[in-house]
Amino acid sequence: MSYTLAIDCMGGDHGPSVTLPASLAYLRRDPDCSLLLVGLQDVLHAELKRLGADREPRLSVVHASEVVGMDEPPAQALRGKKDSSMRVAIDLVKEGRAQAAVSAGNTGALMAISKFVLKMLPGIDRPAIASILPTVKGHTYVLDLGANVDCTSEHLYQFGLMGAMLVSALESRERPSVGLLNIGEEEIKGNEAVKGAAELLRASDLNFHGNVEGNDIYKGTTDVVVCDGFVGNVALKTSEGLAQMIGTFLREEFSRGPLRKLMYIVARPVIAAFRNRVDHRRYNGASLLGLRGVVVKSHGSSDAYGFEQAVARAADAVRNDLIARITQCMKRTEVAA
Amino acid sequence: MSYTLAIDCMGGDHGPSVTLPASLAYLRRDPDCSLLLVGLQDVLHAELKRLGADREPRLSVVHASEVVGMDEPPAQALRGKKDSSMRVAIDLVKEGRAQAAVSAGNTGALMAISKFVLKMLPGIDRPAIASILPTVKGHTYVLDLGANVDCTSEHLYQFGLMGAMLVSALESRERPSVGLLNIGEEEIKGNEAVKGAAELLRASDLNFHGNVEGNDIYKGTTDVVVCDGFVGNVALKTSEGLAQMIGTFLREEFSRGPLRKLMYIVARPVIAAFRNRVDHRRYNGASLLGLRGVVVKSHGSSDAYGFEQAVARAADAVRNDLIARITQCMKRTEVAA
Repeated sequence: MSYTLAIDCMGGDHGPSVTLPASLAYLRRDPDCSLLLVGLQDVLHAELKRLGADREPRLSVVHASEVVGMDEPPAQALRGKKDSSMRVAIDLVKEGRAQAAVSAGNTGALMAISKFVLKMLPGIDRPAIASILPTVKGHTYVLDLGANVDCTSEHLYQFGLMGAMLVSALESRERPSVGLLNIGEEEIKGNEAVKGAAELLRASDLNFHGNVEGNDIYKGTTDVVVCDGFVGNVALKTSEGLAQMIGTFLREEFSRGPLRKLMYIVARPVIAAFRNRVDHRRYNGASLLGLRGVVVKSHGSSDAYGFEQAVARAADAVRNDLIARITQCMKRTEVAA
Repeated sequence: MSYTLAIDCMGGDHGPSVTLPASLAYLRRDPDCSLLLVGLQDVLHAELKRLGADREPRLSVVHASEVVGMDEPPAQALRGKKDSSMRVAIDLVKEGRAQAAVSAGNTGALMAISKFVLKMLPGIDRPAIASILPTVKGHTYVLDLGANVDCTSEHLYQFGLMGAMLVSALESRERPSVGLLNIGEEEIKGNEAVKGAAELLRASDLNFHGNVEGNDIYKGTTDVVVCDGFVGNVALKTSEGLAQMIGTFLREEFSRGPLRKLMYIVARPVIAAFRNRVDHRRYNGASLLGLRGVVVKSHGSSDAYGFEQAVARAADAVRNDLIARITQCMKRTEVAA
């Protein structure tokens, strides 16, 4: 099966200097994939030439004359920049010329444009951002990670539905377990939205585990963890901050004096293996769920290795026919309801 | 200055087997402190005898015939168990026989009983749980960590006020910086409660830094981080889960085969120093703020070392005359308002 991905090459903090090397790296490891590189054509052609990739047959440049700023209000990006690299990449998905779009650009703008161009799946009110996080047992999917704040119970329920479908599709698991992020395991705990969501999830066909707490994310208690976008975003960024601090402390401890530096040289292979295991770049690439098309969001500050993982995640969703599977599941749910 | 602390010896997952050794350890390092050990007197006397501390002059046992269960509904603990060790410890503060109470028991019950017995400070609607977290630069104070869900803008503003007063009192800092936990630095970000709180904080006399994100907690961007109890609890427990996972990974990497085990032996002093630095037990002991008395909550699963830190935190608040200082600040704020 061959397929095509549209890459917003101008998005993110670093633009083409990251997105192009990452795209080329992914292309080398996946012979079935073709890429449409979207952005300012002169810039992209020059950069491709510099990288010695201007004759690669599975690459084409698609010109887009505008770029969405990282801090630009979503409404302005949507209405005012109809020829932005982000918009053109998503248009390519809508037109069927690409099966998925990848962008490291402004999250709010990406959500707004995706929703406007691709439209929502029936029965889903808002898109959600889902990401993989590592756990002691393997990994888990957490959503929403910041697309929606002030979620109602019904929204949280829909996140559970979409998360379960994502895991079913990508990991061929029959009935993935769904946990609801709360501040205690007991049913009486939590705010009103969460309490209502628990009732909806319990009454549904989903394999609902019940409430989970923050530490259950990394314990891998459930396959899917559902939360409000505000809470999910704070949990994710707090984790990033803690991991960075721990990395700093480890480095500092191994730098106190010549003896410890020697110890570091001895232990370096282990520390390197450890660092690789907790490397957040490996988990880069969040899925925008609930849309009639595959859109993957890379971290804005991602490097080429990280962006390559986001491209791989989009390819994975296409190979597993994510949208068709979710649509099918939604129909079954409607029939059951 | 000498002072007395009331210890709820029956609370927590382990009861006297943790709280008594911890109390004795604290007593040895603080000659100004006396302790009232509250709980089932037969159990406490027997345990003290076993520990060889039954003749310690700065210790007294105060009998309480009941124990609040860790999962007991707060209302039931408040109304039904008027002779619980938790209640008696707080009554001792109310009566002036102790200057602070420490408990590792049920958080909800501790909140409800403290609020009922000690009453709130004027101008504060709800107590908040504040805790110290380590940062790259030192440490920061985060509140609320789970006492309040569905907070209004006004509540968040009050948390900012109380947090700033806590840092002023304990660290003698003039105008501690206050950050509002949000999902982006821009003013337009966040949910309704947070947006409103930002306006109140900006209009106040506090040294308001503006919005901060999850990673700013461990970066130490501000002296105080303010958030809804739901969000704070998730951030704290997610951090615990991540730290545990990282510890597991580090151990696993150093256990893969005899060569790596040898490397571990070489690097052990550094790993131990590192572990000590991220040891969450050092940060145990959360302050219940907004009450007319000092109450410190220890983690329920805390060991003796952790509980000792919670006792130390209560002593620190008493030594720094926390309640008088907060009351004074509140009066100044009222005058200014």
